[in-house]
Amino acid sequence: MAEQIRIGIVGYGNLGRGVELAIKQSPDLRLDAIFTRRNPDSIPSETKAYSIEDAEKFIGDIDVMILCGGSATDLPEQGPAFARLFHTVDSFDTHARIPEYFEQVDAAAKASGKISVISTGWDPGLFSLSRLLAEAILPEGKEYTFWGKGVSQGHSDAIRRVNGVKNGVQYTIPVEEAVNRVRSGENPELTTREKHLRECYIVAEEGANQEAIADEIRNMPNYFADYDTVVHFVDEATLKAEHSAMPHGGTVLRSGKTGANSTQIIEFGLTLDSNPEFTASVLVAYARAAYKLAQEGGAGAKTVFDIPFGLLSPKSAAQLRKELL
Amino acid sequence: MAEQIRIGIVGYGNLGRGVELAIKQSPDLRLDAIFTRRNPDSIPSETKAYSIEDAEKFIGDIDVMILCGGSATDLPEQGPAFARLFHTVDSFDTHARIPEYFEQVDAAAKASGKISVISTGWDPGLFSLSRLLAEAILPEGKEYTFWGKGVSQGHSDAIRRVNGVKNGVQYTIPVEEAVNRVRSGENPELTTREKHLRECYIVAEEGANQEAIADEIRNMPNYFADYDTVVHFVDEATLKAEHSAMPHGGTVLRSGKTGANSTQIIEFGLTLDSNPEFTASVLVAYARAAYKLAQEGGAGAKTVFDIPFGLLSPKSAAQLRKELL
Repeated sequence: MAEQIRIGIVGYGNLGRGVELAIKQSPDLRLDAIFTRRNPDSIPSETKAYSIEDAEKFIGDIDVMILCGGSATDLPEQGPAFARLFHTVDSFDTHARIPEYFEQVDAAAKASGKISVISTGWDPGLFSLSRLLAEAILPEGKEYTFWGKGVSQGHSDAIRRVNGVKNGVQYTIPVEEAVNRVRSGENPELTTREKHLRECYIVAEEGANQEAIADEIRNMPNYFADYDTVVHFVDEATLKAEHSAMPHGGTVLRSGKTGANSTQIIEFGLTLDSNPEFTASVLVAYARAAYKLAQEGGAGAKTVFDIPFGLLSPKSAAQLRKELL
Repeated sequence: MAEQIRIGIVGYGNLGRGVELAIKQSPDLRLDAIFTRRNPDSIPSETKAYSIEDAEKFIGDIDVMILCGGSATDLPEQGPAFARLFHTVDSFDTHARIPEYFEQVDAAAKASGKISVISTGWDPGLFSLSRLLAEAILPEGKEYTFWGKGVSQGHSDAIRRVNGVKNGVQYTIPVEEAVNRVRSGENPELTTREKHLRECYIVAEEGANQEAIADEIRNMPNYFADYDTVVHFVDEATLKAEHSAMPHGGTVLRSGKTGANSTQIIEFGLTLDSNPEFTASVLVAYARAAYKLAQEGGAGAKTVFDIPFGLLSPKSAAQLRKELL
């Protein structure tokens, strides 16, 4: 078999562990090192872990660094810093800051002659690809994105900050009736409330006023006030047993018109038992693409929009034409 | 506005007419000429039609020729011939012959320095892209394609060849129960019969034996024998009124596993009122991409696997990152 692509993981949380698992399903890739800000000896992996400060010593020994940190504080710093040293892939997902982040990573990667794939995963990522494809094919149309059913980390964090809440998990749930109206070609105008429900499972602190907690959650601006929100109180054991998984998914629909009045609907959907494991699997496929782009002589920041699907596969172009076209 | 991409249509059947309609939705493209083997004066279009023999005179005046002929006899000849003169896009869909066709068109296009996008549309085309993407992200998994509900031209042609049949239309229908088993993550083994039903609407000739016709259809090898087939007899007026449209669509599903045992499902689906208009809309988006690839200095045959989605859109890369990522 051909030489393996040598991968490093930067940051070993849920996403980093998912990347480790995805690499095991990809014989053309090899995980060589994990880099962490924690004590490297505390990392529970078969792969050797190092301090993130030592990453620079691996130039020439690692091909692609998969950056598994968060978008709020980790990636704005690590993205450009690692692009100066390695090919990189990340899942930067602060939509409004993507143009600015792209420029910073692009400048760093062009200076070093590296490829950096930014903002992959499923949204941004696969959902963005679906939106672009559907809009390009059906320019006269309307696009809808429904998220869930799945756990929203941002909303779960928000409910855990409420006074009297010990622990909690929030599910975003698409309103089935709204999805079906779009699928029927009706092209409805949908309010925020009509598109998604929010459901919360809360462990209250002893003696806390449950009605006050539920009230505060339901009226929280931005997070809940514009939605119908259902609040359940459960005990800690139930929360752990029934709400520890991280399912997610969603659907991107475009309903367009061609010719005189033909309704044409394009739909892309994900149903995920594990959001971080799936996101990790997307990152790993784009790590392969980053390496292949670099072999072709490319440099700079790239997004999913710039990368042909053929580069995501370990198969050759001729094999793909024969087997999958 | 920037200069428009100048398009020619070769072959003015259902697909060619669909391309004409799709170009009207794309202000960055302009239809300049239609080429036909029929009498050009018989073409019912506002755009001027010419004999296909005169196409060569348009070198320098047309950027991309969209080849709208059939895969059986038209494209094997026209694909390489036009690739010697223009950038081209086609929907060659004889799966088994794609590798050979690719080589022929590639040689012609490389010699002329042109770009030729072959085998676009939705299957091959968008469905192929979905299969590749899903396999690259979920290497441990199983892929299912369901077609329909829609009119199959090949099967409709087959029933019209049966003795005593005056006219007829055949619908391919996915078995909902099978689709739902796949969506549930069960990864079933499905026989041909379990995946699709076939439904025929037949106008019989006067005095024909309907039971004999239905029997012959239901037992036709390859086309019907492996399926449950329902045959309805209707009069010519009903067939015309209720079965003249050309709806189609389908679903590509991949159900895979990540980590210890997380089920992850990727689904791509189309629901089309008009199969030829939708296929045409895909061809037009790839005509834009062919032109952009050529501007970047590319040459040779390309498939959907080789073309980044960003090139399908009239928007700039920066605008796409800002609006759609």
